[in-house]
Amino acid sequence: MKKIAVLTSGGDAPGMNAAVRAVVRKAIYEGLDVAGVLNGYQGLIEGKIELLQLGSVGDIIQRGGTILRSARSPEFRTLEGRQKAVEQIKLHGIEGLVVIGGDGSFMGALELTLLGIPCVCVPATIDNDINGTEFTIGFDTALNTVIEAIDKIRDTATSHERTFIVEVMGRNAGDLALWAGLAGGAETILIPEEKFDSTDLIKRLKSGTGRGKKHSIIVVAEGVMSANELADILKKEANIETRVSVLGHIQRGGSPSARDRVIASQYGARAVEVLMEGRSGVAVGMRDHLVIDYDLQDVFKGLHELDMSMYTLSKELSI
Amino acid sequence: MKKIAVLTSGGDAPGMNAAVRAVVRKAIYEGLDVAGVLNGYQGLIEGKIELLQLGSVGDIIQRGGTILRSARSPEFRTLEGRQKAVEQIKLHGIEGLVVIGGDGSFMGALELTLLGIPCVCVPATIDNDINGTEFTIGFDTALNTVIEAIDKIRDTATSHERTFIVEVMGRNAGDLALWAGLAGGAETILIPEEKFDSTDLIKRLKSGTGRGKKHSIIVVAEGVMSANELADILKKEANIETRVSVLGHIQRGGSPSARDRVIASQYGARAVEVLMEGRSGVAVGMRDHLVIDYDLQDVFKGLHELDMSMYTLSKELSI
Amino acid sequence: MKKIAVLTSGGDAPGMNAAVRAVVRKAIYEGLDVAGVLNGYQGLIEGKIELLQLGSVGDIIQRGGTILRSARSPEFRTLEGRQKAVEQIKLHGIEGLVVIGGDGSFMGALELTLLGIPCVCVPATIDNDINGTEFTIGFDTALNTVIEAIDKIRDTATSHERTFIVEVMGRNAGDLALWAGLAGGAETILIPEEKFDSTDLIKRLKSGTGRGKKHSIIVVAEGVMSANELADILKKEANIETRVSVLGHIQRGGSPSARDRVIASQYGARAVEVLMEGRSGVAVGMRDHLVIDYDLQDVFKGLHELDMSMYTLSKELSI
Amino acid sequence: MKKIAVLTSGGDAPGMNAAVRAVVRKAIYEGLDVAGVLNGYQGLIEGKIELLQLGSVGDIIQRGGTILRSARSPEFRTLEGRQKAVEQIKLHGIEGLVVIGGDGSFMGALELTLLGIPCVCVPATIDNDINGTEFTIGFDTALNTVIEAIDKIRDTATSHERTFIVEVMGRNAGDLALWAGLAGGAETILIPEEKFDSTDLIKRLKSGTGRGKKHSIIVVAEGVMSANELADILKKEANIETRVSVLGHIQRGGSPSARDRVIASQYGARAVEVLMEGRSGVAVGMRDHLVIDYDLQDVFKGLHELDMSMYTLSKELSI
Repeated sequence: MKKIAVLTSGGDAPGMNAAVRAVVRKAIYEGLDVAGVLNGYQGLIEGKIELLQLGSVGDIIQRGGTILRSARSPEFRTLEGRQKAVEQIKLHGIEGLVVIGGDGSFMGALELTLLGIPCVCVPATIDNDINGTEFTIGFDTALNTVIEAIDKIRDTATSHERTFIVEVMGRNAGDLALWAGLAGGAETILIPEEKFDSTDLIKRLKSGTGRGKKHSIIVVAEGVMSANELADILKKEANIETRVSVLGHIQRGGSPSARDRVIASQYGARAVEVLMEGRSGVAVGMRDHLVIDYDLQDVFKGLHELDMSMYTLSKELSI
Repeated sequence: MKKIAVLTSGGDAPGMNAAVRAVVRKAIYEGLDVAGVLNGYQGLIEGKIELLQLGSVGDIIQRGGTILRSARSPEFRTLEGRQKAVEQIKLHGIEGLVVIGGDGSFMGALELTLLGIPCVCVPATIDNDINGTEFTIGFDTALNTVIEAIDKIRDTATSHERTFIVEVMGRNAGDLALWAGLAGGAETILIPEEKFDSTDLIKRLKSGTGRGKKHSIIVVAEGVMSANELADILKKEANIETRVSVLGHIQRGGSPSARDRVIASQYGARAVEVLMEGRSGVAVGMRDHLVIDYDLQDVFKGLHELDMSMYTLSKELSI
Repeated sequence: MKKIAVLTSGGDAPGMNAAVRAVVRKAIYEGLDVAGVLNGYQGLIEGKIELLQLGSVGDIIQRGGTILRSARSPEFRTLEGRQKAVEQIKLHGIEGLVVIGGDGSFMGALELTLLGIPCVCVPATIDNDINGTEFTIGFDTALNTVIEAIDKIRDTATSHERTFIVEVMGRNAGDLALWAGLAGGAETILIPEEKFDSTDLIKRLKSGTGRGKKHSIIVVAEGVMSANELADILKKEANIETRVSVLGHIQRGGSPSARDRVIASQYGARAVEVLMEGRSGVAVGMRDHLVIDYDLQDVFKGLHELDMSMYTLSKELSI
Repeated sequence: MKKIAVLTSGGDAPGMNAAVRAVVRKAIYEGLDVAGVLNGYQGLIEGKIELLQLGSVGDIIQRGGTILRSARSPEFRTLEGRQKAVEQIKLHGIEGLVVIGGDGSFMGALELTLLGIPCVCVPATIDNDINGTEFTIGFDTALNTVIEAIDKIRDTATSHERTFIVEVMGRNAGDLALWAGLAGGAETILIPEEKFDSTDLIKRLKSGTGRGKKHSIIVVAEGVMSANELADILKKEANIETRVSVLGHIQRGGSPSARDRVIASQYGARAVEVLMEGRSGVAVGMRDHLVIDYDLQDVFKGLHELDMSMYTLSKELSI
């Protein structure tokens, strides 16, 4: 193996740059050439491929976003588009590809492996919703961004004795809501993994008020409902006044946390090793606190599981 | 003069605690007793008044929110309510009151002076919209919170080559939008002080795209319109796709910046001095970089003026 | 079991308050009374013991330091002192004690169990040097504090093309230096677990310069030597000019990271469960990503092991 | 005028990049060509001069350090060196130079004006020690960095009931120590502008202890003495135990605060205007809250004056 390439795809996540850096430096350390593909799969189709040097990834470990940029590519969803991508890969003498992104990006990599291109995937998404790995790159940073926001909102909630609803990202996975709610000391956490029950929620809020709670934070994952919808329900069903905060896109950005930089470095380097071993269709991740690699197809054979003991704990601690 | 009191009122602003601390410590330094009124004017009516000690304000200079809490008080808007407040003030032997808050709170103080209570007002609102002072407590912190958010959003904007609309607080005053836009390197800033012109905005955005700009940040003050409304206009009138981020309540919270802690300390101490000089109906503030005090009625005789040279500058620097 | 107590001891670590909160809330949730001991073991001897309520631990999950405070206690090192402590524990009807701290504090707890007091220990130290657990409370926060400092120093290192030596905490354990060095993109990491070899270090630095490196960050754990000593060696042996930064006490403080708040909540709650099960002489911790508890004596049967694969990785990525 | 250049010199300060960006964008807005000089005056001598585009300064407003880098230049201190610089300036067709830095850099610019090169200076130094301007670029950011450090140290000081000495930058000017001490709630502030009196300090500390103060923060500017020297004095003269924290180089780095980005933008743009007006030997700054320009020679005719009312206030508030 003489040359590999790396791309970032899907929604950006803090730590993607640290992963790109690790792929590039590890590859050069191992004597390989390494190219960067710009704009994800679309750039692959268009041949936006450049050789990278050690200096290309200098001073980026601490930066949010991705220097390789990302883009949606409807064209890549067609066989024709993917064949163009394969042509470009061959044209540039690329013998293996590291794909950094979420499950949509992983699906793209799986398709490429079917066309004969060795691919290894590195999980990077703030949602932490990749099956088979305990942590994805970006989750820890997003989590810290959310709790900083909750800490700020708590200042106002306490000063004005109000109930706030904080909406965080997470369409299918409640990880961000659950961890942030527990770490932020939220009184209530609503996650997609649990059926929403307005009667139970209202009972809980009223019982808190009965015990003398004067302010309260509810964290809701967007996959359950929007914060505004929830505010309407509480107003309509129980005349409970709330304020709403939708954290939105700030959750994706920012300088990566130490933890995200470390796992991004580990995952990126491992991906290069896997390619050098001549393997393909592999995902990198963490299990039992160890960096692992596993069959890419396993990602699609189940759903990422939430640690429900944390959910129980959050209920006990918010009495 | 033997005893004064202090209260916080209206929306909370970072640095209110630093101001409360300064009032309390300066008063004690000068040999006065000082009481804290809980829950703003409503607490005044209800006699929620406690003597404070040096220790009562220990370890609060760095905290957001207000330890004295704040509340709305429809009752205080009635003469009857205000008379109750006056009774409580007299009952507690309070000879002067420091009111920390925004212009609504200042109006309440003005009413109290008409009933014979010596009042001095300290401007604290993240909107920086008090006539007669260059800076209010909380503005600098909110500004830094907003640019941190913009920095994060820029990571995604750059990575995905997208246009983002960031909505910041400011119903009547564009200070926060203007300063944040300039400091955040926003390509476009929309403030209530300038008439909104969609044609001009669209021309500007398209000209940027023409020059090769691949991403763009628009900062809009809520007083102009909501970010969602703006997104709809851009979509409808020019088919421009944008993403929206409403910063909301995080702008009110957080540990105060150094600058806000300093002016809060200066304003709070000056307020005590003014009361000790036997004056009433006075506002404290900053003009020409100096701490000043001026007639409280002047606050209502005009509007806070925006520095339009900054607006011009922002346009020149975002070519 | 009707009543337990909790204390913090040794150097403070961010997240201690979150652990105290978890102990108190979990205990109350389980129907127990819970007391807080002020000033660690010294306070135990002096009977500084107060019943805590839900409200006693409100609004502290985000605070650095420890509301229970900590103190050194030479008296507790004597049998007489410990017997006084036992008397106080019995006097207050305390049937179990949660000790939050580092290995010195754990040793104290072990002594108390020998005197018949059921004790459970929660690891909290920024050094991450407790045998038997993958993570201690405070490590993740300190790590993020260190990389923020390194990011700042890198600004100057890059601007002036200089080599900086950053000294971080860690007398016996190199965890903080290793993780921070890897996450901070340091070119060189010196840890107590590896023998220091000035010849090798100088060769490495010169080889970097030869490849065109214009600035460089060296992270050194205080257990290896001080940054100033290292600067002297590099100057004397190879005429290499460096700048020195000793991070010092800022590493202990600050609002805990999300991760530290989560594990503090988990460890604190588990400690209460262990006491309720009638067990004593137990340490709580994390292994293979799971919250565990194990024999307190095991803490002293070995040394915390560093993940040397991270050390190798850091060398490969800093070529 | 068709072409100008910009350089950064001396110690780096957060906001230098924002100033470079403003110079470049304002110049291009006005139809000028603008070049960047690398490595300060040394780069000028060596002809390290590159034409800059709008894109050259994209995405740098939020970055610490300086993309133009800085360097010491003993050669520039000789007439011969400066003549080489003048030759390069002429060779590149540069008709005016913007120098961003501290007073040493300003002196260099003054020398260049004597050799016929139109120069305008922009004050950027975290020390805030330039005569004639209320604020220099970088001061506000450094100030916030220092108070964040003090907030962290206070966590430990409170938890362990200790006295801490925090050493901040400032050889001749006490601005950083004074503002940080006031904003950080320090009990004592030692600045070069005030004669150090150990007897008075010890009396003050003991009186605090007498009133029940259990912890205390002393902020000392490096120009008074080092934190370690102070600790020795307190130990020797009064047996007062203290802990020491030397903040060091972290004070120079970091993403600039909103305020620093704003004044950097204003100063940079004004500098271009001054050059376009055909003026030379001018410094830009702020007075009475307004952006001003004034004779560069005035910088050296006096010393920056500290606001001693803040010093008095800090003493009153730390009773």
